[in-house]
Formats: sequence, C-alpha cells, structure tokens
Amino acid sequence: MSPQKIGVTEVAFRDAHQSLFATRLAMEDMVDVCEEMDQAGFWSVECWGGATYDACIRFLNEDPWERLRTFRKLLPNSRLQMLLRGQNLLGYRHYEDTVVDKFVEKSAENGMDVFRVFDALNDPRNLEHAMKAVKNVGKHAQGTICYTVSPLHDVEGYIKQAGRLLDMGADSIALKDMAALLKPQPAYDIIRGIKETYGEDTQINVHCHSTTGVTMVTLMKAIEAGADVVDTAISSMSLGPGHNPTESLVEMLEGTNYETDLDMDKLIAIRDHFKKVRPKYKEFESKTLVDTNIFLSQIPGGMLSNMESQLTAQGAGDRIDEVMEEVPRVRKDAGFPPLVTPSSQIVGTQAVFNVLMGRYKVLTAEFADLMLGYYGECIGERNPELIKQAEEQTKKEPITCRPADLLEPEWDQLTAAAEELDGFNGTDEDVLTNALFPSVAPGFFKTRHEGPKNVGKTEEQMKKEAEAASGAANAVREPISYRVTVGGRSETVKVEPA
Amino acid sequence: MSPQKIGVTEVAFRDAHQSLFATRLAMEDMVDVCEEMDQAGFWSVECWGGATYDACIRFLNEDPWERLRTFRKLLPNSRLQMLLRGQNLLGYRHYEDTVVDKFVEKSAENGMDVFRVFDALNDPRNLEHAMKAVKNVGKHAQGTICYTVSPLHDVEGYIKQAGRLLDMGADSIALKDMAALLKPQPAYDIIRGIKETYGEDTQINVHCHSTTGVTMVTLMKAIEAGADVVDTAISSMSLGPGHNPTESLVEMLEGTNYETDLDMDKLIAIRDHFKKVRPKYKEFESKTLVDTNIFLSQIPGGMLSNMESQLTAQGAGDRIDEVMEEVPRVRKDAGFPPLVTPSSQIVGTQAVFNVLMGRYKVLTAEFADLMLGYYGECIGERNPELIKQAEEQTKKEPITCRPADLLEPEWDQLTAAAEELDGFNGTDEDVLTNALFPSVAPGFFKTRHEGPKNVGKTEEQMKKEAEAASGAANAVREPISYRVTVGGRSETVKVEPA
Repeated sequence: MSPQKIGVTEVAFRDAHQSLFATRLAMEDMVDVCEEMDQAGFWSVECWGGATYDACIRFLNEDPWERLRTFRKLLPNSRLQMLLRGQNLLGYRHYEDTVVDKFVEKSAENGMDVFRVFDALNDPRNLEHAMKAVKNVGKHAQGTICYTVSPLHDVEGYIKQAGRLLDMGADSIALKDMAALLKPQPAYDIIRGIKETYGEDTQINVHCHSTTGVTMVTLMKAIEAGADVVDTAISSMSLGPGHNPTESLVEMLEGTNYETDLDMDKLIAIRDHFKKVRPKYKEFESKTLVDTNIFLSQIPGGMLSNMESQLTAQGAGDRIDEVMEEVPRVRKDAGFPPLVTPSSQIVGTQAVFNVLMGRYKVLTAEFADLMLGYYGECIGERNPELIKQAEEQTKKEPITCRPADLLEPEWDQLTAAAEELDGFNGTDEDVLTNALFPSVAPGFFKTRHEGPKNVGKTEEQMKKEAEAASGAANAVREPISYRVTVGGRSETVKVEPA
Repeated sequence: MSPQKIGVTEVAFRDAHQSLFATRLAMEDMVDVCEEMDQAGFWSVECWGGATYDACIRFLNEDPWERLRTFRKLLPNSRLQMLLRGQNLLGYRHYEDTVVDKFVEKSAENGMDVFRVFDALNDPRNLEHAMKAVKNVGKHAQGTICYTVSPLHDVEGYIKQAGRLLDMGADSIALKDMAALLKPQPAYDIIRGIKETYGEDTQINVHCHSTTGVTMVTLMKAIEAGADVVDTAISSMSLGPGHNPTESLVEMLEGTNYETDLDMDKLIAIRDHFKKVRPKYKEFESKTLVDTNIFLSQIPGGMLSNMESQLTAQGAGDRIDEVMEEVPRVRKDAGFPPLVTPSSQIVGTQAVFNVLMGRYKVLTAEFADLMLGYYGECIGERNPELIKQAEEQTKKEPITCRPADLLEPEWDQLTAAAEELDGFNGTDEDVLTNALFPSVAPGFFKTRHEGPKNVGKTEEQMKKEAEAASGAANAVREPISYRVTVGGRSETVKVEPA
C-alpha cells in the first residue's frame, strides 16, 4: 500500500510572524523566497489575515491589497490562503452582508483562493454569510471550529459543529487550536468522529500552535485519525507561541503510512532565508518557549499579560491570583465562550472589574453586549440575572437573532466616508480598508505615497548593536588599575564605577 | 481499564544543563529544588555523568563525589541515576576491570541507584564488565543501545542488541537517542520488537533529545509500543539541543490509555526554580532551537561545528561541503560507528585530514586505533587496506579481543599516582578522580579547599548587564561620572556627549 499523502499549509507568511514577532514582517523580506515557497509543494500558503492587514497599514505603510497582488504574482502555482473572522471580516465589529460580499469578491479578484472562515464564539450564524460569499465567487470555503475546553465542550459537540459547517457548503473543515490546547487524544477523537459521521472524504485541516509543547503529537494523532492537511511553519519561523516546524513534520512521517509531497531542498532554502530575516525583528519577539500553564488556568498567555497590565495600571498588580480565579466564573456566566480575540479581552476585563470593584458592580460595555447577544450565541446559557442587569445598564434589548441581521445596508455610506479622505485612491479596496480600520486607514492613505517601511533592523544596525552589546558586557564592573606614562613619568591609574 | 503508568526520568540535574549550557550548573543552584524533585514522583532523577563530573572539577571547583552525596541526602526517596560510558567509566580511555569495579562500588556507596551503561560503538564487550559490577553491588543495571542510522543498522539488529544486554543481566534496556535521530515509527518498531521477543515485562527506558523537533512524537509512539519510562526535562530546562518538556509529556497523555504519576504542583515549583536559574548561565547557551539537518547529513551539530573550527584554523573554512561529503565515506571505512563522542571526533577529524591532505594520506592516531580495534568492534567490517595502513603507521597489531583484556591491573599504580598530589584527600574517590581526569584533577585537588565556584551570573550582575546593554543600545545620552584615582589622589570625572 503506498503511503497516504498529507497536505501541508505553510504559515510563515502570516500566522508565524504574527505569533512570533507581532506581525511586523515586511513584504520586502518575503519576496525573495516566494519562488521556493511556490515550488515546495504546499497544499496552500497562508499569507493574509486581520493582523497582517492591520500591521500593514498601521506599522509598515504598506497597502495590504498590493501585498496580496504581489503574492499572487510571485506564487502562480500556489493556493493562497487567508483567515477571515466571519461577519467581522478583518475588523472588530459585525459588517452588513453586502460589505461581506464585497470583501470576499475583492479578495478573490486580487488572488485569494482559500478562505478559512471562523467566529470567536463558534456561532455558525456569524460564519454563514461569509461562507456563502466565498462559494459565490467559486473559491474554497473552509469552515472553522475554534477549539476550546470547558465543562460544556465535548467531542460530540465538535462533531455536530462540523456538520453545521458542512451544511453551509464548507469545502473543508478546519480544526483551529489557537491556544495550543488541543491534546492528541481529543484531536484523534474529533477528527475520527467527523470522518465517520460525514464520510471519509470530508477534508479536515488542522491548525495548532506549539506553545504547550504537545501539539506535534497532536498533529501525528490527527493524521492517524484521517486529517488531510496540517499547518506548520518552516523551522526558522517555528516553535514558542508559533507553530510546529515544517521539516520536522516531513521527517516525523518517515516509515509510517503517511507522507508529504514536500521538496526538502526547497524547504531548506526557505529555512535559510528566514534564518537571516528573523533576527532583524528580534525586538518584537516574545520570550516564551514552552508554557503548559494554559492547561491548568485555561487562560491564554496573551490574555494573562493583558489582565496583568490592567491591574498594574490600577496599582493592584498583586491581585492577579484573584482575577485568575474570577475568570472561570465570568466565562461560565457568559456561556463558556472560547477565550480568543475578542471574547478573551471581554471576559478578562470584566474579571478585572469584578475583583477591583466588586463582582458585577459595573459591567463593561462589551461584556454587556456579550450578555445581550450582540456578539452571537455561545455554547452555554448566559446568566439571566446578568442579562437583566446588562439590559438595565445599557437600555438595549437582548437579541436572539443573528447580530448582523440588525444592520442596514452600509456600502454606500462606507464609500462616501472613504471619499472624504486625503489619499483615497477611488477603489473598492480602499473603501474596505477604511471600513475595516477606520482609525488607522486615514493616516495610511495620507502617507501611502511614501512607500512601504521596513521596521526590522538592517544588517548594519544589527552589527553595530552586537558590537555595542559586547562592549557593554566588557564594561568596567570592578576597579581596574592601569599604569600610565606621561612625559617619562609613570603613575598608576585606577578606574572604577563611581 | 485503568490507564497504564508511565515512569519519567527527569534530566534537569544532568543532561539538560549539559546540552543547554555546557554543563555549568552549580550545585548551589540545585539544592533549593531537591525537595520538590524528590516528591514529584519521578521514576528516577538523573544527576551524574562524565560531563558533570568533568565540569565540577574543571570549572566549578566542586568535588563531584560531594555533589553525589548531597543529592543522596536531599533526595532520600528518589532513585538517583547516572550515565556510565562502560569500560571508559567517565573518562576518555579504557580502564582495567578492577578500576571499573572500584568506581561502581564507590558510586553505589555514595548513593547511586541506577547505572545507565553505554558504549559509543555499541560493542557489548565494552559494557559487560560494568554491567556485572553494578549487579555485584545490587544496583539497577541499565543496558543501553545507542541509536544511530546507517545502511547496516536496522530494527532487527537493535532487537538483537537488546537481547545481548539482557543476557548480561540488564534490569532494563535504554534506547538512547543522543542526536534526536529516532523517528516515531522506528521507535515503535524497535520497542515492540524487544517486548515481543523478550517478554512484555522487559523494562524499556527511552532517552531522546529534542533538537530535530520530532521526538515528542517519538516518545508518544514509544509509549504506545510499550515503553515503561521516558526521559524529559522540566519545561524551563527543555527544548533546543536538550529534551522534551516534562509537563508537556504529562498533559500529552490525557485521555489516552497511559498516564504518569507526577505531581503537577511540584513540577510547577521545579519549573519556576529553573526559570530563575537558567538566565544566569545565558553566556553558555547554545542558539539552536530546532535543526533537522542531521536527518540529511547524518552529522550531529556538535561534530559539524568541531569540523568547521578545524577547517577555519587551517584557513580552509570554505571546504566544509567537501568534508561533509567525506564523512560518510570515512564512517563506512570504519564499519559505521554511531557518531557520538568519541567516534564523532575521530571520524570527523579524519575526514578533515582527508580533504586537506588527500584521502588517507595521513591517519590520525585515534583513527588508526579505531581501525585496529582498540576502541572495540563496530557493526560493519572495517576497510582491510586501511587496517594494514594503520598497522604500518603505528607499528601496533590489530586486535580482535575486548580492548580492556590487554590492560594490566592498575589500581595500585593509580593510587600511588594520586598520593603524589598536593591536596589528595586519601580516599578511593580521589584516586578515581585523578584516574579519570589526570590532566584536571591535580589542579582541582590544590584549589578544592577554596570551595565551589558558581560561574553563573549573580542577580546583581544580570541587572547591571541589562542596564549596560540598554545603555549601549541607546548610546551615551546623559553624563556618566567615574571616580578616577591618580597617584593616590581621587577625582570625579564626568563624561557627557560633547
């Protein structure tokens, strides 16, 4: 029996630098490796998403649409893949359906092939329209399950969720483990369950982060259960809060009934490219290498540091333990949302408020909206008393419909708003940029003509800093005596830090 | 069915710091965590070996026997484990059998429980006497297979090797993967084969490094095949050229038919301890995080950098590719030894000689000895022409017997040699220290009374350096004052940007 082929999605161009160095990777540092990336044999190349779009216009003075077109040109043989936050698109609110249509249409037109569509609450109604829009333009619609752990989440539930995504016409199912929480056995059980329930030809893609040190094993078990495609990052852009290394995945499968079709020579070229590039962005790097805390606390690292800085700002940095105990209670009251952007911030901030001001003395506006259904539905029932309190506090009605159903058509208005801006280039793409990031786009439109910035260090800068650092390491720490001779007369000179 | 218990050997006290920061960890930085280590529930605590012994007397002015006794005292409930290089003991030559007996006897007397006995060439005759010595003192004799890959090495061969170790009375078999070469499927096949051939109750311990990024999966497959004990390092002392993280192993098994008995609270305490300690040794740290090159080149990272520096010293730094192509040829001529200390250096240096001076124009003394059988037997036949050349060059006979059979009783002579040394304390332990490291021990005996040194940085130093580094990065912006003493007269000198 010839081994089964396993597809690989390479995430170096998107999630890897998002996870490792705050999404700062400039297009300039990717173009030279696109040819190898295109020829390595990946199932898809992930290269676009909310954070890369945001970072482009916020930090890099780079047009994200131009980036997409460049990828399309330089990777003619590859499926380009993006991450799409359902009805939120790449922004932080729900958009009305025609905006969703327009965004998907323009993305496809500029070169996108695979749309991984997800919702932070796993509310299928928040994915539905985006999935339909992708199908309408004839592209690959990947329905996504955000994996989390709670007393209500179980294998059976995830299998059912996959069914709802397939009912929407999903071309594949992504099992997305953004917090590295997915252990080998549940991965096996969920994937096997989906395959057995909906057919062995249901395509399943698995996305794991590597933070907790267990998910390379998760990928192995996922493959044994029948996963078709797994996400990895080239080794020089891997591990820590990022992803498992691509080359290791290839090697791991040797001798098993599975194999990839990746070209190792190309992988090595890609690895060597990023080995040179990554140090340029060192100042943006996270220090975490492996962290299993999340298995105990259920609190992702990013959420923890966020709550800590909120506490410190209030002079209550010593109360983090109380907040960590409060988080599970708040999460339960909210119906056990996955803790991922934005629900992690909403739950975390409310937990901080509860500890500092007394439990639910004040609801944040976002937590009130969450309780009233304005973000969608969660797996669990929400605390009815808190719903009532939210209603009273905000004077808003609780809703049970799909949140986007309440929105009026807004494309014309968004176009009008963009047209007012200096530097607007008249395209639908620019309308979308301003619609998605209204506080950042106006500034970007003004400076766009200056061209992309690279916030990484140049080789010369790195060299200078290395020299300075080694100088610092050798700096005077203890008294040093010198013998100095001036005009034939010698003196001992002692130098010490004053 | 209740889950099967998997034992864990924690390597933080030995192989972890050997692999991560050049074996520099001072006893002082371990004592405070011994209580938690003792109570965490490990199958054994690895804490002693050749490199730690060497580093103690070479860099830390610390008596390795005193270190062992301290571990014994502070870990009363734990099996202490060491790595023993067969007939080499902890040194770099073969020792005569009575020295082996004495060393094992003294190690047991001072507190050692589990002796992991290996030979770099996998020649069982080099293990035999040490194994017998361990059995004689009633301790746990663990026979070791050094895992490597070559055209001659196969699953069947490793299974047979395990049989030879069991015939010697091995209490358990260690599968030792020092180069992170052991992929999941071969691990499964070897372990299953051993269990099926010699009985399911044959204890198998698995030791993997994490360098290549695949071996966490190897541990999973090893466990599924029936491995009883696996080696890991607490997360804050894990990954890179080190080992897979202990906490991740615990979590990985959730929901499977396997579980550890480790106490997570204790693991967290151990992790937090080393999180503080590790940065002190940063200057000794290796930069490698993941490296799959070895799968392609078969050349371990340490061996590669060794050959590179040899080439550079000869002004031929650009010829590394030729040397890398030469290595497999030299290894084949030598009968495919595993590439591990000392065979990796012997093969690597000969390859460098071949490239620089012409193939086998000159044999190194060590390569000649290897060809003549003075290190033992390899799996493959050695090139007969090279054996002849070695004979002619060295005027030595090729041997086929166990190398140590040629040695005369040497204990009295070793004792006499030690007695000549300043600071010799009259114990057999000191005789052994001098026997194992004759070029280092005399200096250590002289300075021993000064007490152990800690070569890690103090917290104050780290703080100062961080300040200096940030100062260097920002260059001199504010005036800095120095106190300068000239001819007995002190002045304060202020330096500021002009």
